[in-house]
Amino acid sequence: MERKLPDPTPGADLIGARIAQLSTPVPVIDEDRMAANIARVQACMDKEGKAFRPHIKTHKIPALAEQQVAAGARGINCQKVTEAEVFADAGFDDILITFNVLGPKKLERLAALNGQISGLKVVADNMVTVQGLSETFANAARPLSVLVECDTGGGRCGVQSPEAALDLAKAIEAAPGLTFVGLLTYPQAFTEEAVETFFSSALKLLESENIACPIVSNGGTPSLFNAGKVPSATEHRAGTYIYNDRAMARAGHCTLDDCAMHILATVVSRPTDTRAVIDAGSKALTSDLLGFGDFGHVVDYPDAVITGLSEEHGVLDLSKCAPDARPQIGERIRIIPNHTCVVSNLVDRMVFHRDGVITRVESVAARGRVW
Amino acid sequence: MERKLPDPTPGADLIGARIAQLSTPVPVIDEDRMAANIARVQACMDKEGKAFRPHIKTHKIPALAEQQVAAGARGINCQKVTEAEVFADAGFDDILITFNVLGPKKLERLAALNGQISGLKVVADNMVTVQGLSETFANAARPLSVLVECDTGGGRCGVQSPEAALDLAKAIEAAPGLTFVGLLTYPQAFTEEAVETFFSSALKLLESENIACPIVSNGGTPSLFNAGKVPSATEHRAGTYIYNDRAMARAGHCTLDDCAMHILATVVSRPTDTRAVIDAGSKALTSDLLGFGDFGHVVDYPDAVITGLSEEHGVLDLSKCAPDARPQIGERIRIIPNHTCVVSNLVDRMVFHRDGVITRVESVAARGRVW
Repeated sequence: MERKLPDPTPGADLIGARIAQLSTPVPVIDEDRMAANIARVQACMDKEGKAFRPHIKTHKIPALAEQQVAAGARGINCQKVTEAEVFADAGFDDILITFNVLGPKKLERLAALNGQISGLKVVADNMVTVQGLSETFANAARPLSVLVECDTGGGRCGVQSPEAALDLAKAIEAAPGLTFVGLLTYPQAFTEEAVETFFSSALKLLESENIACPIVSNGGTPSLFNAGKVPSATEHRAGTYIYNDRAMARAGHCTLDDCAMHILATVVSRPTDTRAVIDAGSKALTSDLLGFGDFGHVVDYPDAVITGLSEEHGVLDLSKCAPDARPQIGERIRIIPNHTCVVSNLVDRMVFHRDGVITRVESVAARGRVW
Repeated sequence: MERKLPDPTPGADLIGARIAQLSTPVPVIDEDRMAANIARVQACMDKEGKAFRPHIKTHKIPALAEQQVAAGARGINCQKVTEAEVFADAGFDDILITFNVLGPKKLERLAALNGQISGLKVVADNMVTVQGLSETFANAARPLSVLVECDTGGGRCGVQSPEAALDLAKAIEAAPGLTFVGLLTYPQAFTEEAVETFFSSALKLLESENIACPIVSNGGTPSLFNAGKVPSATEHRAGTYIYNDRAMARAGHCTLDDCAMHILATVVSRPTDTRAVIDAGSKALTSDLLGFGDFGHVVDYPDAVITGLSEEHGVLDLSKCAPDARPQIGERIRIIPNHTCVVSNLVDRMVFHRDGVITRVESVAARGRVW
């Protein structure tokens, strides 16, 4: 007996079915919550007078970036050259890659991308990156736009002072094939004031040397609604807000009811009165804790605690649930993940629904593109 | 300018190239270390007189399961029906799915699978699962083989006592369409003695009721070399041993030199003397800590500590590295992941090499099969 494996891009046959019919574990996205998240954040950015640049790392789906742009976003943010290729091929022209691009293969592809779209921008925080970019673009038809990444206290990448930002901007301006176009930070410092202090100091230094700085780019979903506290910034970037997750709710950016992604799971075992085992493990929820002590919020049993994950099993401690209100074997439960972006990255296709009825299935087109 | 996206199943063009030419981040597998891991474990199992059933969750690649079977493994272990479908289509007949299969879609596919191969087996630890299986298989041409999963102290799924194992075995025997074929445990208890006590007690009870129990299945890579301490067991299952990882080295199963998977990463920033940032984050290494305080072992800089991961960035604390021996921007480093199985699940294709020269590229065929 021969069985046909699923088509590599299935989904159309699911439209109109109910998410309750899907096999678990599976993440699903509530269309209305997502649309409300897009609208709410864009309205805030419009009110603050900031250009808004969504980070597509959260969804990796061109159709969703189209919704974000239709709502008013100006350009998109990618984290990898391979992601940017997918979005350029889908018709996006204004793409900022917030990563130090290094290595011959990536530089070669970056050069092709800059030939394909006119609005490509990258960041650099060091001279090795600037030299690699300049060697690649020295004879290009179109120079590459480069922003200087600044560490405003977040402790990841970035030059360490406004003076260092000036020095790198000057080096970019002097480098053949490159154009300095702005400053950028992520993750931002613990206070917006520290970001503003860094940016405004660097802007003064740039001005004193007559170096134009058209873009000042701040970022992060938790800081979205405080965008006004960084007057120097011309744009804000954020990714997670489109789906939202448990960490964003904890940060005060949204409520749990604004979380558009639920992971549907099934209770497959109830070994003891206080233990349930579900079919969602680290290959469905990921192990991202983000400071939480457990692996997700169980919507239907908020007192249940996901204490441990194997790859395909999640273990729930039910001891805080009332004895007569504990999930039974075969029951389906909904989980809000700690971190939605890493969950998207696990699946090839994402299912969308409205009130439980499947509206569409989108390929997570930019995931898994390693080479 | 139009650029063609990579073919969905590329890789042949990489054979003969060096892994140093691959863009990072990328996991690669050392063929010789992997072959040695397969041989060492199979020799141990042969010596102990146990049937060995590799768990394919670690690699999800039929060609590797073929190597495991060629070395002497008897059948394979899958965790999901969708994984088992891939391996059945690849020609494997003896497949044990170590999961309570629940829900109409999965049961329907399980029925198709049992029609396709003659050696399909599943586990159950509760009556809801047994009833669902029996309703599905009551009129099947071939009955479904079912093992009773036992919690021998690992605290995940499984019946809680030998008496409960007997009761469930009797229910399986009485259920139309099902055949009881054995006992199984995972994760095992902290001592092999506890596993043996559970199994031997359950076997006595089964014998007293004249219920045959041809399979007694123990599992886990760390316990492989103690398989002899569970004389009741007829077979052992393990997955991670094929690649090995940092957690297996800590458990004493192997050394770091036996770890066949390295994740290649590039240093993209050196914001301070003691901080390096690499291009491998949680979407390359995963956030699995498995009890470690950091996110992987840096082979080339063993004193460097991967203190934090963003999605595409890893932050390294270099303060314990000698000041004149710290990685530079652009330098490539090798990382042994805490947990190899979850890394495999992130990539569509796996690159294999011998002494740095690429030998083959395999599709991770059973990943991402959600529906």
